[in-house]
Amino acid sequence: MSRIFNFSAGPAMLPAEVLQQAKDEMLDWHGSGMSVMEMSHRGKDFLSIAEAAEADLRQLLAIPDNYKVLFLQGGASAQFSLIPMNLLGGKPGLIDFVNTGAWSKKAIQAAKNYADVHVVASSEDDNFNSIPAQDSWQRSDKAAYLHLTANETIGGVEFHTTPDSDVPLVADMSSNILSRPVDVSRFGLIYAGAQKNIGPAGLTLVIIRDDLIGEAHPATPDVFRYSVMADTDSMSNTPPTYGWYLAGLVFKWLLAQGGLDAMEARNVRKAGKLYDAIDSSDFYANPVAKDARSRMNVPFTLADGALDKEFLAGAAEAGLTSLKGHRSVGGMRASIYNAMPEEGVDALIAYMRDFEQRRG
Amino acid sequence: MSRIFNFSAGPAMLPAEVLQQAKDEMLDWHGSGMSVMEMSHRGKDFLSIAEAAEADLRQLLAIPDNYKVLFLQGGASAQFSLIPMNLLGGKPGLIDFVNTGAWSKKAIQAAKNYADVHVVASSEDDNFNSIPAQDSWQRSDKAAYLHLTANETIGGVEFHTTPDSDVPLVADMSSNILSRPVDVSRFGLIYAGAQKNIGPAGLTLVIIRDDLIGEAHPATPDVFRYSVMADTDSMSNTPPTYGWYLAGLVFKWLLAQGGLDAMEARNVRKAGKLYDAIDSSDFYANPVAKDARSRMNVPFTLADGALDKEFLAGAAEAGLTSLKGHRSVGGMRASIYNAMPEEGVDALIAYMRDFEQRRG
Repeated sequence: MSRIFNFSAGPAMLPAEVLQQAKDEMLDWHGSGMSVMEMSHRGKDFLSIAEAAEADLRQLLAIPDNYKVLFLQGGASAQFSLIPMNLLGGKPGLIDFVNTGAWSKKAIQAAKNYADVHVVASSEDDNFNSIPAQDSWQRSDKAAYLHLTANETIGGVEFHTTPDSDVPLVADMSSNILSRPVDVSRFGLIYAGAQKNIGPAGLTLVIIRDDLIGEAHPATPDVFRYSVMADTDSMSNTPPTYGWYLAGLVFKWLLAQGGLDAMEARNVRKAGKLYDAIDSSDFYANPVAKDARSRMNVPFTLADGALDKEFLAGAAEAGLTSLKGHRSVGGMRASIYNAMPEEGVDALIAYMRDFEQRRG
Repeated sequence: MSRIFNFSAGPAMLPAEVLQQAKDEMLDWHGSGMSVMEMSHRGKDFLSIAEAAEADLRQLLAIPDNYKVLFLQGGASAQFSLIPMNLLGGKPGLIDFVNTGAWSKKAIQAAKNYADVHVVASSEDDNFNSIPAQDSWQRSDKAAYLHLTANETIGGVEFHTTPDSDVPLVADMSSNILSRPVDVSRFGLIYAGAQKNIGPAGLTLVIIRDDLIGEAHPATPDVFRYSVMADTDSMSNTPPTYGWYLAGLVFKWLLAQGGLDAMEARNVRKAGKLYDAIDSSDFYANPVAKDARSRMNVPFTLADGALDKEFLAGAAEAGLTSLKGHRSVGGMRASIYNAMPEEGVDALIAYMRDFEQRRG
């Protein structure tokens, strides 16, 4: 079978050009006689790869000089704990959260282990189909920081503006980082698991403003202390070198595409035509408020849920896979990250129209 | 340049056959139309990869049914903290350690954060060039467990027998796992970073006896709780899928080589001829007691340290790289893990003899 269009929520598609380059270099990187995954992380070859990746990421996101970029292990889920452990330092404190869905709730749950938690706004009463209006947020007087989930992978809800905040803004951008320009200076900390828009699972990025790096909770393992990892260029211990390398290839690919302005234009187009196809049909439906719809994850239902299985089987036959929605919301979900080609979205829309004509 | 012989201590060489297969499958795994790193970790394709890897590892090490195998992130360095966090549960406790070198010391240092620490024996007075005789160990009455470093990557010192222990034995096997058969039932917990004998950096194996899995330190992030990871088959969150896949390819390669008996025979032969070359020369020297010499990491010095640079430059020209010793011990170090072909050791010995003839 040739390459298919994989709508998985993550791990997800990577650019074919990146995979091709990784393939070409698998046994011999740039005449070194070895694979990147065989290199000492302290040798000049790998250091050149690591530094180029960080420099390209800094260029893509225009990361200010007073921010560190950490290349970590553990996934965004580990950061649900490690952020309060690092930012509160084991002292009593209060964290403000905006609750916009399943991933917000996980971050809130983990933080309760380390701090008092206050939910400034929640869209749970709306079945997580919107972003609470900012003028309704009940902020605390002295939160250590305000946490939000920039994109909810399961619900398909995305922040399209960055809220104002007097306290440092901490954002889980696992599923929409690098899909659009972001003013990093508006955030205290941005974190993201790699397996949607960055590279393979097992790498986690933390972009943190210098002044927030302090003493961590005394129980924090050294390799998860931001101070230790900032001081060692993320090499207190052996980093996930191959994931770092692949992330670097993705960053170069993004630059070659024209950077994040170009990616945003493409993502607006891709998501726009898919939502249009859903909205213009009586057979398909998406429940999310239009101003909060995710460009990355598009959940939709069929008018007759009994046809779900047939829809999925036909899609797989057409080379469109991993469209089954998360079990908590049912129906379908099309994840259309940066690496999903526009032709993949076009093929999905064509299949949806054909299916509706035949079975709608 | 063609493939070279890379004597790096880790990340280190991987079998060329494994890299070739990863290359062949990079854009299309088994007709799936996608790379392994693009697969949902919850889909049947990846689950089949994950299960086969665990089954093959269990076969290689004859892991008893009452042991869990966890595929984690963070590296062995994270386990220096996570083992006491998980095994002591945040309660006061005492841990016994054998101190045989730099990695023992790091494990001891990290554990002090969570427990009282008692060193039952140390070879530090001997410059870490031996393993303290077991009848000299001053064991505690009621340690939670006894920790040892099965192979010291920097010092080149290895346990060649498994000590008796009334309390659970915990072993860091990062740099000698899968190099020889081990009676897993003699251990409570075995852990290993992947980047020497398993696969790429970013994957860490923990093999733990069921009854030791309990309540962790309250500050432990969920994804680092053994109980959580055991209950979810290491998929509480997205695992490092590509590293898991490559580890599986390495396990299959080991089975095809004849398993760990065959690997041990090969490793005894490889290390034996290298130590013989060193011992039979007045120009090269290795300081480690013969009964404690590592089969994996062979440090050696030149009679005249002023020749080190010339030795390394000539070696690199001959396709023999990463031979520089760790800065704390100086000289040279040849790491000859499973994936170092016997021809690599032969080529090194030939180069050493030639260099001695020319410059000795």
